[in-house]
Amino acid sequence: MFIDDTIAAIATAPGEGGIGIIRISGPEACDIAEEIFVSMSGKKIKEYPARTLIYGYIADGEKRIDEVLVAFMKGPNSYTAEDVIEINCHGGFLSVKKILELVFKKGARPAEAGEFTKRAFLNGRIDLSQAEAVIDVINAKTDKAHEVAETQLEGSLSKKIRDFRDKVTELLAQVEVAIDYPEEDIEFIAYSTLEEKTAELLEEIKELYSTADSGKIFREGLKTVIVGKPNVGKSSLLNRILGENRAIVTDIPGTTRDVIEEFVNIRGIPLKIVDTAGIRETDDVVEKIGVEKSKASFDSADLVIMMADSSRELSDEDMEILEMIQGKEVIMLLNKIDLEQKLDEEVIKKYVNEDNIIKISALQNEGIDKIHDKIESMVYKGDIRSTSDVVITNTRHKDALYNAMKSAEDASSAIADRMPLDFVEVDLKNIWDYLGHINGDTVTEDLLDNIFHNFCIGK
Amino acid sequence: MFIDDTIAAIATAPGEGGIGIIRISGPEACDIAEEIFVSMSGKKIKEYPARTLIYGYIADGEKRIDEVLVAFMKGPNSYTAEDVIEINCHGGFLSVKKILELVFKKGARPAEAGEFTKRAFLNGRIDLSQAEAVIDVINAKTDKAHEVAETQLEGSLSKKIRDFRDKVTELLAQVEVAIDYPEEDIEFIAYSTLEEKTAELLEEIKELYSTADSGKIFREGLKTVIVGKPNVGKSSLLNRILGENRAIVTDIPGTTRDVIEEFVNIRGIPLKIVDTAGIRETDDVVEKIGVEKSKASFDSADLVIMMADSSRELSDEDMEILEMIQGKEVIMLLNKIDLEQKLDEEVIKKYVNEDNIIKISALQNEGIDKIHDKIESMVYKGDIRSTSDVVITNTRHKDALYNAMKSAEDASSAIADRMPLDFVEVDLKNIWDYLGHINGDTVTEDLLDNIFHNFCIGK
Repeated sequence: MFIDDTIAAIATAPGEGGIGIIRISGPEACDIAEEIFVSMSGKKIKEYPARTLIYGYIADGEKRIDEVLVAFMKGPNSYTAEDVIEINCHGGFLSVKKILELVFKKGARPAEAGEFTKRAFLNGRIDLSQAEAVIDVINAKTDKAHEVAETQLEGSLSKKIRDFRDKVTELLAQVEVAIDYPEEDIEFIAYSTLEEKTAELLEEIKELYSTADSGKIFREGLKTVIVGKPNVGKSSLLNRILGENRAIVTDIPGTTRDVIEEFVNIRGIPLKIVDTAGIRETDDVVEKIGVEKSKASFDSADLVIMMADSSRELSDEDMEILEMIQGKEVIMLLNKIDLEQKLDEEVIKKYVNEDNIIKISALQNEGIDKIHDKIESMVYKGDIRSTSDVVITNTRHKDALYNAMKSAEDASSAIADRMPLDFVEVDLKNIWDYLGHINGDTVTEDLLDNIFHNFCIGK
Repeated sequence: MFIDDTIAAIATAPGEGGIGIIRISGPEACDIAEEIFVSMSGKKIKEYPARTLIYGYIADGEKRIDEVLVAFMKGPNSYTAEDVIEINCHGGFLSVKKILELVFKKGARPAEAGEFTKRAFLNGRIDLSQAEAVIDVINAKTDKAHEVAETQLEGSLSKKIRDFRDKVTELLAQVEVAIDYPEEDIEFIAYSTLEEKTAELLEEIKELYSTADSGKIFREGLKTVIVGKPNVGKSSLLNRILGENRAIVTDIPGTTRDVIEEFVNIRGIPLKIVDTAGIRETDDVVEKIGVEKSKASFDSADLVIMMADSSRELSDEDMEILEMIQGKEVIMLLNKIDLEQKLDEEVIKKYVNEDNIIKISALQNEGIDKIHDKIESMVYKGDIRSTSDVVITNTRHKDALYNAMKSAEDASSAIADRMPLDFVEVDLKNIWDYLGHINGDTVTEDLLDNIFHNFCIGK
């Protein structure tokens, strides 16, 4: 992949703000900027030391567009490792838009989503897992998500994957020598040593892999549906949780204005409350959106929190919901324990694991802590907080690691069965390849496009 | 007003973007940055030349928060004319938020809305009309609005006001000498000369003042309500206009999610379509939002575009609307001229100026140009486009200019009546003061607070 064109985009979020930034990257970046920028000193950009913020204005011929600061970052010491120009202008819609249009007129082309970061990867400044961390940093909704993404951006995962691959390379080298020179009598790697080292590697890969379930939740949030028939207290609960722990409400760009993602931060775990709009109209979730739609929202959920009124007997509606959520991870809340109890728990126990039934009073704020305990124990499963700080957060990495793990298991059993080393070699090569998917050493262009497609424009 | 504290805020728009900027201004700006920034080179910020983008990361003790570029702009060569630090970090919510919190922890205080620009004004880097232009540049919704704001930011209005005030100063000097040394026999300013020069000044002020009506529209948009009974074709018209000329749709921060401002660009004139949500539900504007509410929305409108179906007779509903819009600037559209005509125009003419009745077919795209012509002629009134490029866009400036104009008129008549020069002196001083409100030479702190309150945080 040889990159020889110059790209440009607005690098700041759209909307009203003090400063907007237009970023240009590529061989023509500086020439384009010289054409449209007039410094107050009268000097050209190239006469200044690189990385200096130069004061002046952008002009289209005689027409002054906005006052700006311009900085030239000479490759490879830049975000993309190419020549980069950043133009800081006044925020708002039009200044950035007009300057960007002018930059296009002078020969840059619109950057695709994530293209700056993609170039940073293609030019070797960062590896693929670091590039992916960039978007995770930007999208992070909770402190934990941000922290994990920053660690990955720093290269902690890259380093771990490199370590694994170094071990595979070493094993491969020894296996290949043994294959190439079978007649030699020198002491090649013994099957038993091979067995031991492969087992070691497999253990390490497994350990990293085991962080993936929790890691995914840190990154994407635990998709949670709160369900229950009218007037069981869902909105009291939601308000109680939201009021104390509300993280961030985001509009999802490009979708309808009605879709809101609401993130609730439970002991560092981001709960992504699904379809809040619907849930907030507490009165008739099931009825209004229909059984089919409800089912669909349950299907995509990582967790269903069902609420029933323990001061009343179970109704047909309750039973209907119970039927619907079969097979999901369910926390059952029996609300209104401050009132006389009439609900038959035995029926509930037929549908929901007894450990997951929690008695609360949303109104009197009783038992809420137990919900938090339960969610925490479900997510962490007692393993993650004690392990290293390298966590797999990305489904793509998880899949690659799974394949690497399977290949390591194949290698292990081939060695245990004392199969010919050619077989072992294939398995080891597979491990090496799959691990390379994570840091980008072995990826296809299609996959890259797919990954960077999820970035925002301007990054 | 002595400023000795250090302020900080996020300077980029909130939301998902490649880059976020935290801006710090004040005497401690650099020290605070040194405390939390670790450069890759190991050098301190102050060891670099000012205005260099320095690569490194922000850390809270041992904990790394985000990788950043930091620039130090030493006062007075900065936005505020104080020491300014700008930290460019990854966009999104959390990086900027965490870094800002850390900056606060180290001693900066949250900047108020517009406080950076206010400091630029208080420190004498720009005058008040330039400061106000900053927010106009950011808020500009059309090219023309942006252009006018940029011109004002450059200082064109400042220069004009300075010229006016210089003339007043000159007159005042002569009048005061004449007052102070009445016994001297030297040739002081003659009443006739004074009369001539004051009249000249009055004319110039009037000319500038005459740009204000159109100028306000450039800045704020022409608030337009489109009204008509169901099925007359309002939505076809709106779609036709929006489809071709849609400028920008903005969410208004801090208000309900339902309020959308829709700007339509008609030959450079921004039409701000009021209450689009209501209008889009074309079926029952009047009925649904009620007569009272409709009236309220008419009251705030600069222009009402009423539409009637010329292929039908006028109904009670049409008549009701006609009654309601009395006294407003109205353009009457008779739609569906492609069908057989049944509407009695004579009735309409009793309510609407004949010149403002336009026959169209929204469906067949006939007559739309005539609407544009009419709006254009209403706004420009034949005057503005031929005059200078200095335009009054701000109601506050308009009011101050009005008062200056009134004082100039008072001065003129005092001189015409050969009143004692003491009286003339008072009037001239008033002109000088009122003009000073525009560039900020003579303003109260309350007024300043009021002006900068409308800025966004971080500017």
